[in-house]
Amino acid sequence: MNVVEFGQTGNPAEVLKFKPVAELEPGPGEAKVNVLAAPIHPANLAQIEGAYLAPVPELPATPGMEGVGQVAALGEGVDHLSVGQTVLLTGAGGTWRDTIVAPAAAFTPAPPGDIEQLAMLAVNPLTAHLLLEDYADLQPGDWVIQSAANSAVGEMVIQLAAQRGLKTVNVVRREELILPLKALGATVVLVDGPDLAERVKQATDGADIKLALEAVSGSTFYRLIEALAYGGTLVAYGNMSGDEPQIDLRSLIADDIRLRGFWLSRWYERTSPDEKQATLGQLVPLISSGQFKTNIDSRYPLEEISEAVTRAAAGGRDGKVLLTPNHA
Amino acid sequence: MNVVEFGQTGNPAEVLKFKPVAELEPGPGEAKVNVLAAPIHPANLAQIEGAYLAPVPELPATPGMEGVGQVAALGEGVDHLSVGQTVLLTGAGGTWRDTIVAPAAAFTPAPPGDIEQLAMLAVNPLTAHLLLEDYADLQPGDWVIQSAANSAVGEMVIQLAAQRGLKTVNVVRREELILPLKALGATVVLVDGPDLAERVKQATDGADIKLALEAVSGSTFYRLIEALAYGGTLVAYGNMSGDEPQIDLRSLIADDIRLRGFWLSRWYERTSPDEKQATLGQLVPLISSGQFKTNIDSRYPLEEISEAVTRAAAGGRDGKVLLTPNHA
Repeated sequence: MNVVEFGQTGNPAEVLKFKPVAELEPGPGEAKVNVLAAPIHPANLAQIEGAYLAPVPELPATPGMEGVGQVAALGEGVDHLSVGQTVLLTGAGGTWRDTIVAPAAAFTPAPPGDIEQLAMLAVNPLTAHLLLEDYADLQPGDWVIQSAANSAVGEMVIQLAAQRGLKTVNVVRREELILPLKALGATVVLVDGPDLAERVKQATDGADIKLALEAVSGSTFYRLIEALAYGGTLVAYGNMSGDEPQIDLRSLIADDIRLRGFWLSRWYERTSPDEKQATLGQLVPLISSGQFKTNIDSRYPLEEISEAVTRAAAGGRDGKVLLTPNHA
Repeated sequence: MNVVEFGQTGNPAEVLKFKPVAELEPGPGEAKVNVLAAPIHPANLAQIEGAYLAPVPELPATPGMEGVGQVAALGEGVDHLSVGQTVLLTGAGGTWRDTIVAPAAAFTPAPPGDIEQLAMLAVNPLTAHLLLEDYADLQPGDWVIQSAANSAVGEMVIQLAAQRGLKTVNVVRREELILPLKALGATVVLVDGPDLAERVKQATDGADIKLALEAVSGSTFYRLIEALAYGGTLVAYGNMSGDEPQIDLRSLIADDIRLRGFWLSRWYERTSPDEKQATLGQLVPLISSGQFKTNIDSRYPLEEISEAVTRAAAGGRDGKVLLTPNHA
């Protein structure tokens, strides 16, 4: 068995090590799963770097929030899995390894479908789903505004919203993103700028916008508040600019604007296993039917972890970097 | 009939004018009420000055948010009032006048009690009540933290909270406020400062604080967020420092902190007459029983409006300034 592990925070290409560990067999109630694919997310890199908003785990630690594997062996008393079955690694944590031994509840049977797409279900598509579901009562025809619309979560929000009959205002930094996002199903795409709220009003015919999804912070945070209707909610889930958020106390008070934050790690910590499985179950058909697809940039074995994270941190990619461990 | 009116924003002592107007009689469904007492609130002065957060009404306008009067005459078809009855001027608006003619629904029958105290029910006690009721599910023993604890609203929050078995952390700017606020029923009183969150933790034995009521803005806003428990709510209802609020995006995201705003004018606009009356009805017994008392600094007839607002704007008072119109 081999794992990827870091003993101190720092540059991921330097602090991450490929390391053989002692072979384990599943005890009672446990399963042993061969990892087939696990993605590298920006949040993984932020955690390894010890960056803003990322909690530092007890070290040494193995990164990895999700992935797909195949059951290799079962301990006593495990009923819901069978050897050879494909499973989501939803509750296992530390998925950047070739083999996981963990309580069987950590694994969710995967439906038929593209294994690599299923390996990327439990972070970005789930985030997009929860952002649209948990903070506003949205009906078909309602408007949502989001910043960072071309991020992996942003693109998933566009697709999920379109599928539910919601209209989206998508805020980006560069004009060349307008056409690709419209092709994904975006209703309106606007380039960020000081007069954003005014252009939103024009583009939506003055419609009430009930929900803002915000991942840039700084002045974009302020402008998304400005664009909201009376009683609207802004959900912050990231800080791509690195700036502190600018807020408009007048809007908060006079327009009853509500500010919230979303963090997927907390959702995993605070949600019951049954509810997790039910929520992921709603998303699986969309992925396995091929309706929502995340581009894949490249695949690396665990031994090439340094090259893999270097590629994942590089600009100009159009897709995710996957770890695809070798199995004898 | 005489009114106080301003035709432009500016220094209240200069722009407010005492002005005789034509006598009116109540039409069908209307009542004519002699105003007995109406308070001068900081929000009135802010509106007249055209200050932060204050909406400018159509001018000329008569200020005044609340008061008590006596029914002088009734139009046809008014059943719930009788001539000579004491009423709250809850829905009338523009209470700085000696006589109001308005739809009868604007007046709420007043219970027996100190007329001057009842005249101050519909702004500060109501604000304190709504802040404690509408934003968190508080049970006896739960903790609330508030800034500006020695403001009129803050003192009412202390009293209402104590009456409901809630514990309060009260943040003030000066040490000499500690004893008077404890005498009102404050559980803990702390002087604001950079290490506030740490001192709150010590003073409350690390208790979870579910609700923060904030009227100072700037860095105090930030420190009240820091003091909240996971999932806690901060309600902003003022900006005494004049600074923009500092917010902690990390807390919003990692600790699921919720930010809201409260504005009484909006509550009046958006609440049905029945609900208004029911809500005020909950407060009337507390006031009329003498349990909650607002200090009165001084009383002025309408003719002395300039002296009255000058006094209301002066520091060092210990109570409200009331307008008490003369009646022939």
